[in-house]
Amino acid sequence: MIVLGVDPGSQRTGYGAVETDGRRHRLLETGALAPPPRLSLPEKLRAIHDGVRTLIERLHPDALAVEDCFHAQNTRTALVLGHVRGVVLLAGAQAGVPVHEYPPATVKQQVTGHGRAEKQQVAFMVTRLLALPQEREPGDATDALAVALCFAGTQGRELAVAIPGRPR
Amino acid sequence: MIVLGVDPGSQRTGYGAVETDGRRHRLLETGALAPPPRLSLPEKLRAIHDGVRTLIERLHPDALAVEDCFHAQNTRTALVLGHVRGVVLLAGAQAGVPVHEYPPATVKQQVTGHGRAEKQQVAFMVTRLLALPQEREPGDATDALAVALCFAGTQGRELAVAIPGRPR
Repeated sequence: MIVLGVDPGSQRTGYGAVETDGRRHRLLETGALAPPPRLSLPEKLRAIHDGVRTLIERLHPDALAVEDCFHAQNTRTALVLGHVRGVVLLAGAQAGVPVHEYPPATVKQQVTGHGRAEKQQVAFMVTRLLALPQEREPGDATDALAVALCFAGTQGRELAVAIPGRPR
Repeated sequence: MIVLGVDPGSQRTGYGAVETDGRRHRLLETGALAPPPRLSLPEKLRAIHDGVRTLIERLHPDALAVEDCFHAQNTRTALVLGHVRGVVLLAGAQAGVPVHEYPPATVKQQVTGHGRAEKQQVAFMVTRLLALPQEREPGDATDALAVALCFAGTQGRELAVAIPGRPR
Protein backbone atom coordinates (compact mmCIF):
# COMPACT_ATOMS: atom_id res chain seq x y z
CA MET A 1 0.00 0.00 0.00
CA ILE A 2 1.00 3.62 -0.52
CA VAL A 3 1.06 6.22 2.26
CA LEU A 4 1.40 9.95 1.67
CA GLY A 5 2.87 11.71 4.71
CA VAL A 6 2.34 15.46 5.06
CA ASP A 7 3.97 17.89 7.49
CA PRO A 8 2.03 21.17 7.28
CA GLY A 9 3.95 24.38 7.94
CA SER A 10 3.17 28.07 7.65
CA GLN A 11 5.98 28.57 5.07
CA ARG A 12 6.64 25.08 3.69
CA THR A 13 4.51 21.94 3.69
CA GLY A 14 6.68 18.85 3.40
CA TYR A 15 5.42 15.63 1.83
CA GLY A 16 6.75 12.14 1.39
CA ALA A 17 5.19 9.09 -0.25
CA VAL A 18 6.16 5.62 0.86
CA GLU A 19 5.20 2.19 -0.41
CA THR A 20 4.96 -0.32 2.42
CA ASP A 21 3.80 -3.78 3.44
CA GLY A 22 3.98 -2.73 7.10
CA ARG A 23 7.51 -4.08 7.57
CA ARG A 24 9.51 -3.10 4.50
CA HIS A 25 9.23 0.44 3.17
CA ARG A 26 10.28 2.10 -0.07
CA LEU A 27 10.56 5.81 -0.88
CA LEU A 28 8.41 6.87 -3.83
CA GLU A 29 8.69 10.65 -3.80
CA THR A 30 9.42 13.49 -1.44
CA GLY A 31 9.48 17.28 -1.53
CA ALA A 32 7.82 20.41 -0.20
CA LEU A 33 5.04 22.74 -1.27
CA ALA A 34 6.24 26.31 -0.74
CA PRO A 35 3.96 28.98 -2.24
CA PRO A 36 5.71 32.30 -3.01
CA PRO A 37 5.64 34.61 0.05
CA ARG A 38 4.16 37.43 -2.09
CA LEU A 39 0.86 35.52 -2.44
CA SER A 40 -2.09 36.40 -0.18
CA LEU A 41 -3.11 33.79 2.41
CA PRO A 42 -6.13 32.58 0.35
CA GLU A 43 -3.87 32.16 -2.72
CA LYS A 44 -1.23 30.33 -0.68
CA LEU A 45 -3.91 27.96 0.61
CA ARG A 46 -5.11 27.41 -2.93
CA ALA A 47 -1.57 26.52 -4.04
CA ILE A 48 -1.16 24.02 -1.17
CA HIS A 49 -4.59 22.49 -1.78
CA ASP A 50 -3.85 22.16 -5.51
CA GLY A 51 -0.45 20.64 -4.68
CA VAL A 52 -1.87 17.99 -2.37
CA ARG A 53 -4.67 17.14 -4.81
CA THR A 54 -2.13 16.72 -7.62
CA LEU A 55 -0.01 14.43 -5.44
CA ILE A 56 -3.07 12.33 -4.56
CA GLU A 57 -4.08 12.07 -8.23
CA ARG A 58 -0.58 11.02 -9.28
CA LEU A 59 0.38 8.69 -6.42
CA HIS A 60 -3.05 7.19 -5.57
CA PRO A 61 -2.22 6.82 -1.86
CA ASP A 62 -4.29 4.39 0.25
CA ALA A 63 -3.89 6.71 3.24
CA LEU A 64 -2.84 10.23 4.15
CA ALA A 65 -0.78 10.60 7.35
CA VAL A 66 -0.64 14.15 8.70
CA GLU A 67 1.28 15.56 11.63
CA ASP A 68 -0.87 16.93 14.41
CA CYS A 69 0.38 20.38 15.40
CA PHE A 70 -1.06 21.01 18.85
CA HIS A 71 2.45 21.91 20.00
CA ALA A 72 2.30 25.32 18.27
CA GLN A 73 4.07 27.95 20.37
CA ASN A 74 1.31 30.55 20.36
CA THR A 75 -2.25 31.12 19.16
CA ARG A 76 -1.15 33.11 16.10
CA THR A 77 1.17 30.31 14.91
CA ALA A 78 -1.53 27.73 15.65
CA LEU A 79 -4.09 29.68 13.65
CA VAL A 80 -1.88 30.01 10.54
CA LEU A 81 -0.86 26.35 10.79
CA GLY A 82 -4.52 25.42 11.20
CA HIS A 83 -5.34 27.08 7.85
CA VAL A 84 -2.74 24.94 6.07
CA ARG A 85 -3.80 21.73 7.83
CA GLY A 86 -7.41 22.55 6.99
CA VAL A 87 -6.83 22.51 3.22
CA VAL A 88 -4.62 19.39 3.47
CA LEU A 89 -7.31 17.42 5.35
CA LEU A 90 -9.91 18.77 2.91
CA ALA A 91 -7.92 17.46 -0.07
CA GLY A 92 -7.88 14.00 1.57
CA ALA A 93 -11.63 14.05 2.26
CA GLN A 94 -12.43 15.24 -1.28
CA ALA A 95 -10.40 12.42 -2.81
CA GLY A 96 -11.91 9.84 -0.45
CA VAL A 97 -8.49 8.99 1.04
CA PRO A 98 -8.61 8.11 4.78
CA VAL A 99 -6.72 10.68 6.85
CA HIS A 100 -4.73 9.65 9.94
CA GLU A 101 -3.32 12.23 12.34
CA TYR A 102 -0.38 11.71 14.68
CA PRO A 103 1.06 13.98 17.37
CA PRO A 104 4.80 14.70 16.93
CA ALA A 105 5.71 12.61 20.02
CA THR A 106 3.96 9.54 18.56
CA VAL A 107 5.79 9.97 15.25
CA LYS A 108 9.16 10.25 17.02
CA GLN A 109 8.39 7.32 19.31
CA GLN A 110 7.36 5.10 16.41
CA VAL A 111 10.29 6.00 14.15
CA THR A 112 13.17 6.36 16.63
CA GLY A 113 11.85 4.60 19.75
CA HIS A 114 12.03 7.87 21.67
CA GLY A 115 9.15 10.39 21.91
CA ARG A 116 11.47 13.34 22.39
CA ALA A 117 14.05 12.50 19.72
CA GLU A 118 15.96 15.30 17.97
CA LYS A 119 15.29 16.14 14.31
CA GLN A 120 18.68 14.60 13.40
CA GLN A 121 17.71 11.26 14.97
CA VAL A 122 14.44 11.30 13.05
CA ALA A 123 16.28 12.02 9.76
CA PHE A 124 18.80 9.25 10.56
CA MET A 125 16.06 6.67 11.15
CA VAL A 126 14.09 7.78 8.06
CA THR A 127 17.24 7.22 5.99
CA ARG A 128 17.71 3.79 7.56
CA LEU A 129 14.10 2.60 7.42
CA LEU A 130 13.87 3.54 3.74
CA ALA A 131 17.36 2.18 2.98
CA LEU A 132 18.28 5.41 1.23
CA PRO A 133 21.71 5.55 -0.46
CA GLN A 134 22.70 8.67 1.50
CA GLU A 135 21.58 10.34 4.70
CA ARG A 136 18.90 13.02 4.38
CA GLU A 137 19.29 16.45 5.95
CA PRO A 138 16.62 17.00 8.63
CA GLY A 139 13.78 19.13 7.24
CA ASP A 140 10.16 19.22 6.04
CA ALA A 141 10.72 16.20 3.81
CA THR A 142 12.20 13.94 6.51
CA ASP A 143 9.45 15.05 8.91
CA ALA A 144 6.79 14.16 6.33
CA LEU A 145 8.45 10.79 5.62
CA ALA A 146 8.54 10.13 9.38
CA VAL A 147 4.76 10.64 9.59
CA ALA A 148 4.27 8.27 6.64
CA LEU A 149 6.54 5.70 8.34
CA CYS A 150 4.64 6.16 11.62
CA PHE A 151 1.46 5.15 9.80
CA ALA A 152 3.28 2.34 7.99
CA GLY A 153 4.58 0.92 11.27
CA THR A 154 1.22 1.02 13.03
CA GLN A 155 -2.01 0.92 10.99
CA GLY A 156 -0.04 0.01 7.86
CA ARG A 157 0.96 -3.32 9.36
CA GLU A 158 -2.68 -4.28 9.94
CA LEU A 159 -4.04 -2.84 6.70
CA ALA A 160 -1.34 -4.45 4.57
CA VAL A 161 -3.17 -7.75 4.99
CA ALA A 162 -6.15 -6.31 3.14
CA ILE A 163 -4.24 -4.18 0.63
CA PRO A 164 -0.96 -5.96 -0.24
CA GLY A 165 1.94 -3.57 -0.89
CA ARG A 166 4.62 -4.03 -3.49
CA PRO A 167 7.88 -3.09 -1.75
CA ARG A 168 11.25 -4.08 -3.20
CA MET B 1 -22.58 45.01 -5.11
CA ILE B 2 -23.00 41.82 -3.09
CA VAL B 3 -20.91 40.95 -0.02
CA LEU B 4 -20.85 37.55 1.63
CA GLY B 5 -19.86 37.79 5.29
CA VAL B 6 -18.56 34.67 7.03
CA ASP B 7 -17.94 34.08 10.73
CA PRO B 8 -15.97 30.81 11.02
CA GLY B 9 -16.51 28.73 14.15
CA SER B 10 -15.40 25.31 15.30
CA GLN B 11 -19.04 24.12 15.58
CA ARG B 12 -21.02 26.55 13.43
CA THR B 13 -19.91 28.85 10.62
CA GLY B 14 -22.33 31.74 10.23
CA TYR B 15 -22.88 33.49 6.92
CA GLY B 16 -24.81 36.51 5.73
CA ALA B 17 -25.12 38.02 2.28
CA VAL B 18 -25.85 41.73 1.87
CA GLU B 19 -26.47 43.84 -1.22
CA THR B 20 -25.05 47.33 -0.77
CA ASP B 21 -24.16 50.58 -2.50
CA GLY B 22 -21.91 51.48 0.44
CA ARG B 23 -24.64 53.50 2.19
CA ARG B 24 -27.86 51.52 1.91
CA HIS B 25 -27.78 47.79 2.64
CA ARG B 26 -30.25 44.99 2.02
CA LEU B 27 -30.28 41.48 3.50
CA LEU B 28 -30.19 38.75 0.85
CA GLU B 29 -29.70 35.59 2.88
CA THR B 30 -28.34 34.44 6.20
CA GLY B 31 -27.75 31.16 8.02
CA ALA B 32 -25.11 28.86 9.41
CA LEU B 33 -23.15 25.84 8.19
CA ALA B 34 -23.14 23.28 10.98
CA PRO B 35 -21.79 19.86 9.97
CA PRO B 36 -23.01 16.96 12.14
CA PRO B 37 -20.70 16.48 15.17
CA ARG B 38 -20.34 12.76 14.30
CA LEU B 39 -18.31 13.61 11.16
CA SER B 40 -14.51 13.42 11.24
CA LEU B 41 -12.63 16.74 11.01
CA PRO B 42 -11.74 16.22 7.30
CA GLU B 43 -15.41 15.49 6.51
CA LYS B 44 -16.59 18.53 8.49
CA LEU B 45 -14.14 20.70 6.54
CA ARG B 46 -15.43 19.24 3.32
CA ALA B 47 -19.02 20.09 4.31
CA ILE B 48 -18.05 23.69 5.15
CA HIS B 49 -16.01 24.10 1.95
CA ASP B 50 -18.89 22.70 -0.13
CA GLY B 51 -21.32 24.99 1.69
CA VAL B 52 -19.29 28.14 1.03
CA ARG B 53 -18.74 27.17 -2.62
CA THR B 54 -22.47 26.61 -3.08
CA LEU B 55 -23.22 30.01 -1.53
CA ILE B 56 -20.70 31.69 -3.85
CA GLU B 57 -22.16 29.92 -6.91
CA ARG B 58 -25.70 30.94 -5.97
CA LEU B 59 -25.14 34.50 -4.74
CA HIS B 60 -22.24 35.59 -6.98
CA PRO B 61 -20.71 37.86 -4.32
CA ASP B 62 -18.28 40.58 -5.40
CA ALA B 63 -16.37 40.14 -2.14
CA LEU B 64 -16.01 37.77 0.79
CA ALA B 65 -15.63 39.38 4.24
CA VAL B 66 -14.29 37.04 6.91
CA GLU B 67 -13.79 37.58 10.60
CA ASP B 68 -10.19 37.38 11.76
CA CYS B 69 -9.95 35.14 14.82
CA PHE B 70 -6.64 36.02 16.42
CA HIS B 71 -8.51 36.45 19.71
CA ALA B 72 -8.86 32.67 20.19
CA GLN B 73 -8.50 31.74 23.85
CA ASN B 74 -5.90 28.99 23.45
CA THR B 75 -3.75 27.30 20.83
CA ARG B 76 -6.08 24.30 20.49
CA THR B 77 -9.08 26.53 19.78
CA ALA B 78 -6.99 28.63 17.38
CA LEU B 79 -5.86 25.54 15.52
CA VAL B 80 -9.39 24.15 15.05
CA LEU B 81 -10.68 27.58 14.04
CA GLY B 82 -7.75 27.92 11.64
CA HIS B 83 -8.83 24.72 9.83
CA VAL B 84 -12.30 26.14 9.22
CA ARG B 85 -11.00 29.57 8.14
CA GLY B 86 -8.54 27.82 5.83
CA VAL B 87 -11.25 26.10 3.78
CA VAL B 88 -13.39 29.27 3.74
CA LEU B 89 -10.52 31.40 2.36
CA LEU B 90 -9.72 28.59 -0.09
CA ALA B 91 -13.29 28.63 -1.42
CA GLY B 92 -12.96 32.38 -2.05
CA ALA B 93 -9.62 32.01 -3.83
CA GLN B 94 -10.91 29.12 -5.97
CA ALA B 95 -13.91 31.16 -7.10
CA GLY B 96 -11.78 34.25 -7.79
CA VAL B 97 -13.69 36.30 -5.17
CA PRO B 98 -11.52 38.86 -3.31
CA VAL B 99 -11.28 38.01 0.40
CA HIS B 100 -11.17 40.75 3.06
CA GLU B 101 -10.37 39.98 6.68
CA TYR B 102 -11.38 42.08 9.68
CA PRO B 103 -10.48 41.71 13.36
CA PRO B 104 -13.53 41.55 15.67
CA ALA B 105 -12.77 44.99 17.15
CA THR B 106 -12.82 46.60 13.68
CA VAL B 107 -16.16 44.94 12.88
CA LYS B 108 -17.67 46.15 16.16
CA GLN B 109 -16.23 49.66 15.73
CA GLN B 110 -17.57 49.96 12.20
CA VAL B 111 -21.02 48.59 12.95
CA THR B 112 -21.74 50.01 16.43
CA GLY B 113 -19.16 52.81 16.78
CA HIS B 114 -17.57 50.99 19.70
CA GLY B 115 -14.73 48.43 19.35
CA ARG B 116 -15.72 46.55 22.50
CA ALA B 117 -19.46 46.43 21.90
CA GLU B 118 -21.51 43.53 23.30
CA LYS B 119 -23.03 40.90 20.99
CA GLN B 120 -26.49 42.37 21.71
CA GLN B 121 -25.39 45.81 20.48
CA VAL B 122 -23.98 44.25 17.32
CA ALA B 123 -27.26 42.37 16.71
CA PHE B 124 -29.25 45.58 17.36
CA MET B 125 -27.22 47.58 14.84
CA VAL B 126 -27.33 44.77 12.25
CA THR B 127 -31.13 44.80 12.55
CA ARG B 128 -31.17 48.58 12.16
CA LEU B 129 -28.65 48.89 9.31
CA LEU B 130 -30.50 46.25 7.30
CA ALA B 131 -33.93 47.67 8.26
CA LEU B 132 -35.12 44.20 9.27
CA PRO B 133 -38.78 43.88 10.31
CA GLN B 134 -37.83 42.35 13.68
CA GLU B 135 -34.73 42.28 15.86
CA ARG B 136 -32.34 39.36 15.37
CA GLU B 137 -31.08 37.26 18.24
CA PRO B 138 -27.30 37.65 18.61
CA GLY B 139 -25.53 34.65 17.07
CA ASP B 140 -23.39 33.34 14.18
CA ALA B 141 -25.73 34.92 11.63
CA THR B 142 -25.67 38.44 13.14
CA ASP B 143 -21.88 38.17 13.53
CA ALA B 144 -21.51 37.20 9.87
CA LEU B 145 -23.84 40.01 8.78
CA ALA B 146 -21.79 42.43 10.90
CA VAL B 147 -18.62 41.42 9.00
CA ALA B 148 -20.42 41.93 5.69
CA LEU B 149 -21.63 45.36 6.87
CA CYS B 150 -18.11 46.22 8.04
CA PHE B 151 -16.90 45.64 4.48
CA ALA B 152 -19.91 47.47 3.06
CA GLY B 153 -19.22 50.54 5.22
CA THR B 154 -15.52 50.71 4.37
CA GLN B 155 -14.26 49.21 1.08
CA GLY B 156 -17.85 48.80 -0.16
CA ARG B 157 -18.34 52.56 -0.24
CA GLU B 158 -15.34 53.02 -2.54
CA LEU B 159 -15.93 49.94 -4.69
CA ALA B 160 -19.62 50.74 -5.21
CA VAL B 161 -18.57 53.49 -7.61
CA ALA B 162 -17.07 50.86 -9.92
CA ILE B 163 -19.65 48.10 -9.32
CA PRO B 164 -23.05 49.76 -8.78
CA GLY B 165 -25.28 47.92 -6.30
CA ARG B 166 -29.02 47.55 -6.57
CA PRO B 167 -30.34 48.15 -3.06
CA ARG B 168 -34.00 48.86 -2.47
